[in-house]
Amino acid sequence: MLEKLKQQVYEANMQLSQLGLVNFTWGNVSGIDREQGLFVIKPSGVPYEQLKPADLVVVDLKENVIEGKLRPSSDTPTHAVLYRQFPGIRGIAHTHSPWAVSFAAAGRPIPILNTTHADTFYGEIPVSRGLTATEINDDYEENTGKVIVDTFNKQHLSPFEMKGILVNQHGPFTWGMDAKEAVYNAKVLEVVAETDYHTMILNPTVKSMSPNLLNKHYLRKHGENAYYGQKN
Amino acid sequence: MLEKLKQQVYEANMQLSQLGLVNFTWGNVSGIDREQGLFVIKPSGVPYEQLKPADLVVVDLKENVIEGKLRPSSDTPTHAVLYRQFPGIRGIAHTHSPWAVSFAAAGRPIPILNTTHADTFYGEIPVSRGLTATEINDDYEENTGKVIVDTFNKQHLSPFEMKGILVNQHGPFTWGMDAKEAVYNAKVLEVVAETDYHTMILNPTVKSMSPNLLNKHYLRKHGENAYYGQKN
Amino acid sequence: MLEKLKQQVYEANMQLSQLGLVNFTWGNVSGIDREQGLFVIKPSGVPYEQLKPADLVVVDLKENVIEGKLRPSSDTPTHAVLYRQFPGIRGIAHTHSPWAVSFAAAGRPIPILNTTHADTFYGEIPVSRGLTATEINDDYEENTGKVIVDTFNKQHLSPFEMKGILVNQHGPFTWGMDAKEAVYNAKVLEVVAETDYHTMILNPTVKSMSPNLLNKHYLRKHGENAYYGQKN
Amino acid sequence: MLEKLKQQVYEANMQLSQLGLVNFTWGNVSGIDREQGLFVIKPSGVPYEQLKPADLVVVDLKENVIEGKLRPSSDTPTHAVLYRQFPGIRGIAHTHSPWAVSFAAAGRPIPILNTTHADTFYGEIPVSRGLTATEINDDYEENTGKVIVDTFNKQHLSPFEMKGILVNQHGPFTWGMDAKEAVYNAKVLEVVAETDYHTMILNPTVKSMSPNLLNKHYLRKHGENAYYGQKN
Repeated sequence: MLEKLKQQVYEANMQLSQLGLVNFTWGNVSGIDREQGLFVIKPSGVPYEQLKPADLVVVDLKENVIEGKLRPSSDTPTHAVLYRQFPGIRGIAHTHSPWAVSFAAAGRPIPILNTTHADTFYGEIPVSRGLTATEINDDYEENTGKVIVDTFNKQHLSPFEMKGILVNQHGPFTWGMDAKEAVYNAKVLEVVAETDYHTMILNPTVKSMSPNLLNKHYLRKHGENAYYGQKN
Repeated sequence: MLEKLKQQVYEANMQLSQLGLVNFTWGNVSGIDREQGLFVIKPSGVPYEQLKPADLVVVDLKENVIEGKLRPSSDTPTHAVLYRQFPGIRGIAHTHSPWAVSFAAAGRPIPILNTTHADTFYGEIPVSRGLTATEINDDYEENTGKVIVDTFNKQHLSPFEMKGILVNQHGPFTWGMDAKEAVYNAKVLEVVAETDYHTMILNPTVKSMSPNLLNKHYLRKHGENAYYGQKN
Repeated sequence: MLEKLKQQVYEANMQLSQLGLVNFTWGNVSGIDREQGLFVIKPSGVPYEQLKPADLVVVDLKENVIEGKLRPSSDTPTHAVLYRQFPGIRGIAHTHSPWAVSFAAAGRPIPILNTTHADTFYGEIPVSRGLTATEINDDYEENTGKVIVDTFNKQHLSPFEMKGILVNQHGPFTWGMDAKEAVYNAKVLEVVAETDYHTMILNPTVKSMSPNLLNKHYLRKHGENAYYGQKN
Repeated sequence: MLEKLKQQVYEANMQLSQLGLVNFTWGNVSGIDREQGLFVIKPSGVPYEQLKPADLVVVDLKENVIEGKLRPSSDTPTHAVLYRQFPGIRGIAHTHSPWAVSFAAAGRPIPILNTTHADTFYGEIPVSRGLTATEINDDYEENTGKVIVDTFNKQHLSPFEMKGILVNQHGPFTWGMDAKEAVYNAKVLEVVAETDYHTMILNPTVKSMSPNLLNKHYLRKHGENAYYGQKN
């Protein structure tokens, strides 16, 4: 079932590795079929060089495994929460990419300092609060998803404009209209974390980009007035 | 038309990717036929692995598309301004390479601290001012070109001696006598930004190179008394 | 003799190179057959591209060469001490990977700041004291092993929970249930050193991870209640 | 003539590129036949992917080209000075590798902080003074060699124990008993510069390694009591 989606999600998982965002089995990507309410996700702990499309696991939004011989990613409940709470998104990626983790462990958001950032993320990329002891001990992965949603609610962020977050002390989750876009956003987030780090050293009092420049770059690539790329 | 130039510009675009200067579709290179007043540029948003020489777009200096089925790069107006205002240059490259972007976002020029820099760039590599809200909102890409030219005028720089600039909060533009040299200069700029960053940390009071050493290195590679490389 | 173990240790040595952890002949991996009390180790100074399984040297726990035409790694006595003093471990890796060496030379442990670290190392990765002049001059490699064991004893660490250490001014030793896991741990240690370095710059007052989060991540991958990966 | 030496020097030049120490045509390696008093060096400005053994140029110690259709490296006089003044060395490498250049441009030596360094370089790697205006304007490359020798004389260094130097604001020169060892030393110098940089940030008051540890590591690889590697 969902063969086409499995192939897409497989390719997105493999790209995570090709883009240098993961080591070993770390990281996972999923994609959802909104009509059926089912998502496809990488199995837990399988090395990328052994992974095959048929290994992917089909899961429903209540986190039941619907098809698959292997256990799904241990982060599956986080993906499920995000699919439930952010109804429009169709793909999610999670990595431990080093620059993103550096910011997450520092508990710092990724400030909006350059146009590479503005081309993809509509503002500062947020960092969640850390989970409480109770949230960690019970349903940790589910609560990771809830803390992400909580951060978006408190900061009045839209998951369509801000397509990623850093979970405190952990790492990035990104999403998009499909699994491929989620991985694309994971790479952009990593690149922007790297450049911002060096910018902040070069200019410790650097200011955020003006809303004008942010709007210009974000909106030339997104929305009805976009003019970057080819017409579809 | 301009098949030979298209091939050259295609190869230069591909080299941008091979040299590790771009991710995804970011970055673009153009080259100009000065006799015909036409330049060839990468289409907007096409991945490098799909790009073919025939995909390149031919544009005139008034920014009209003369040939090509695809939209030209969204940065085409910036290239056009530079070709109009810097009459001798024949190739332009734009990237979002990470070290260059780090300096651009910090609003800092790349100081002249080592001979690698002096071999290619005749002095400190300037950073432009940021664009005003009006410049951003109307004809952003055209105004990006104008701000570059404005910086050169105010700092009394020659585009033949200083073959690149950082646009504030954005990234580098470099140029040269053809598309290939523009890409070469983009790589040198990136390497120099990286080394300078670490030098400035190792020695926060480091001074600029003496004019003597700068002249020696620049002029052994450029101009009538050059003695680096082979005779043509 | 020990052909299967030689093959495993050979592959683990080669992986050291593939994972970018060593240059030239630096680094070495060993694996032990606990029943026979013999371990297999890389020969000294042989380039990885020339290494063959048959080149590996068989050594007993008293450091006598039992089989092999080549000299064993000069670090063989360090491996022997660790196998004698940490009876349960079955593989050891030593590298000069750059981020780990940076911490070792600074005399600083690798703090526990992110979940990538907690997934593999159960707490801060310790750094040994430097060796005394006498320890350096006589039986240096043996004493390197003793200083590692001494550090574990003084800090009440278990080699099953903390599978690596930095030797002061030198570099990392890691271990595991086989040679492959020792190399895996060497890579994780390097990645964590890199991310921690940047985190400590981004947040100079960053605190260690809570025991709750450490336990959650470490124990979801290790021990009887682990639920990461596939059932065996 | 000197076909075997040309092949060796060719391979050493190619390794410079494979080890990630050079971009484009930067860098050059030479090797000498001490009996004939002739050295073989890379031609100036030829890309590594086009270089062939037959392109190498034969030069005598007075810097006359003895054989070769192409111009020798512009740094040939520096090599000649070093071969004349350091009579025992048989190979020289020059690169613009980024970490080494960062230290050279900062005017700082590479301190002796870890055993990777001590395995190859017997102490702190020196940085030369900058050249005077006169030294730059007349016979620059010759004077670069003289300043290297001058630094060794003033600091009472032996070119057999300290096989490299940073030329101020420029970059590293390394040497050895053949071209291959010179390139090996160029790589070690680069790796050590990288690790030292991070160590100095992690521990701004870090002290140099003790003479005991330096002697142990250097002498286990060099000299009559060496026990690293295989017997010849």
